[in-house]
Amino acid sequence: AKPEVAFETKLSAVIEANRTMGQATAALAMRMAIDKAKVHGFGAVTVRNCNHYGIAGYYAKMAAKEDLMGGSSTNTESIAIPTFGKQPMLGTSPLALCMPADPHDFLFDAATTVVPRGKIEIYNKRGLPLEPGWASDEFGKSCADAQHVLDNISRKTFGGIFPIGGGTEYTGSHKGYGLGIIAEIFTSILAGGDTAPHVKNGGMGDTSFGFFALDYGMFGDKKEIRSRMSQLLQELRDSAKADGCDRIYTHGEKEMESMRDKQVNGIPVSEKTVEELVNIGRDMGMKYGDYLH
Amino acid sequence: AKPEVAFETKLSAVIEANRTMGQATAALAMRMAIDKAKVHGFGAVTVRNCNHYGIAGYYAKMAAKEDLMGGSSTNTESIAIPTFGKQPMLGTSPLALCMPADPHDFLFDAATTVVPRGKIEIYNKRGLPLEPGWASDEFGKSCADAQHVLDNISRKTFGGIFPIGGGTEYTGSHKGYGLGIIAEIFTSILAGGDTAPHVKNGGMGDTSFGFFALDYGMFGDKKEIRSRMSQLLQELRDSAKADGCDRIYTHGEKEMESMRDKQVNGIPVSEKTVEELVNIGRDMGMKYGDYLH
Repeated sequence: AKPEVAFETKLSAVIEANRTMGQATAALAMRMAIDKAKVHGFGAVTVRNCNHYGIAGYYAKMAAKEDLMGGSSTNTESIAIPTFGKQPMLGTSPLALCMPADPHDFLFDAATTVVPRGKIEIYNKRGLPLEPGWASDEFGKSCADAQHVLDNISRKTFGGIFPIGGGTEYTGSHKGYGLGIIAEIFTSILAGGDTAPHVKNGGMGDTSFGFFALDYGMFGDKKEIRSRMSQLLQELRDSAKADGCDRIYTHGEKEMESMRDKQVNGIPVSEKTVEELVNIGRDMGMKYGDYLH
Repeated sequence: AKPEVAFETKLSAVIEANRTMGQATAALAMRMAIDKAKVHGFGAVTVRNCNHYGIAGYYAKMAAKEDLMGGSSTNTESIAIPTFGKQPMLGTSPLALCMPADPHDFLFDAATTVVPRGKIEIYNKRGLPLEPGWASDEFGKSCADAQHVLDNISRKTFGGIFPIGGGTEYTGSHKGYGLGIIAEIFTSILAGGDTAPHVKNGGMGDTSFGFFALDYGMFGDKKEIRSRMSQLLQELRDSAKADGCDRIYTHGEKEMESMRDKQVNGIPVSEKTVEELVNIGRDMGMKYGDYLH
């Protein structure tokens, strides 16, 4: 199957993915949004019936590489609990936004839940208790037992992960809950795909995405705007540190430094992952040795 | 002075407010964004050098009244602490988004700080301790003493309010911190106004706004999209409640119910406020008696 354009205007398109590979179709959609933004100033493309697209920020960054502002979101299977609820109704659905700046772009890429599912899994493997306000038990109360939370999630009973802001209005739960709905608007609602409560099989084949690109030159001189952005980020990094802290980051900085380190020193992988890669390479008849040090 | 259009394209404009009244210039800017969206599908207008514009969600709702999606943001004086910082560098700057739905619109309108400044003031008046993760002392640590926090804020020394997600990465502080930067991008950065660290006198005359309107018909049949949105919101309201909770809200619902109640039963005001209103009315030679019951 191939992705098809189901609907299109000058500034927008909806792509029926026909259950194609997430990364490939997402890159195609973001490319369309970029092309539209270059001609008209703004482009927005949504995608329905696709597979997992990987990293939300990657697509936002595609726009920044062409000196445009970029945005990206995906919905996921339901795993997040609405404020005052106990039933998973929204995804961990990330919102990503990239704005060009020097010496490096502002790249926001955050799950709309207080933590992603992977973090619960890591805490479980390490036998650590979950922080308060991370995850809900089957009664809607905060739960520290990672195994219990993961069991509830895989059994599709009540319980799940809290939105950004945790489980109470005091900590701002309703804000993260609203951001989760916003992610759903920019993906399934505008793409005509399945909303989070109806996504099945972990989202295999029925995930929706949303992308936009905006030429910030529609607000004046691009050099001046980029310079204002760079200055704000520098002022944030230079501002006074909390006692005991020696650095303030701007978004995307940690990831950029990690990438540079890995480009020089290689990517550390566990022996088990190497074994899996070797087996895949052998099955596919590839010269996998060239890629492993 | 009058507001002037400083820069304009088909889809966008930048308004130099010349320190005019916030509400009037903001409504004018949102109206421009709506008109552009009606013709081209999308319109975005930013404003610089203005005064406080009141309620962010009001302008987002203006677009929804014309069956468009609407967004609104303003920057404010610096009061929010970056993650790992202790110096106020960002505003309480709200992000608002309104998406038409039945029986009522989705209306998200949230400060990018965990609480607005007014909440700290209310807790101070009531002599209540602040919740952990709400506000920072002058060392960057969470502080329960409302008077101490307010003193620090008014003295412009270190200390302030934490972003959505509180004061630690464990609770998602970096997410709210990023949303505060995003609010700044859509206001001062794209408007050419003063960024939060440079806003003076509580933002009198140097506040920036951002507005957008989007015709969601650029993604297909509007009735179908609106129906999908309405269904998602109804499913959220109908989903299982946490033990001890009897209702799940969607965003804008509490405010809509409060408005209907006040339209029927009147707006309760304190005697002190009535006295202030009477004095203003007398000074201006207005028949204020007609408006008071």
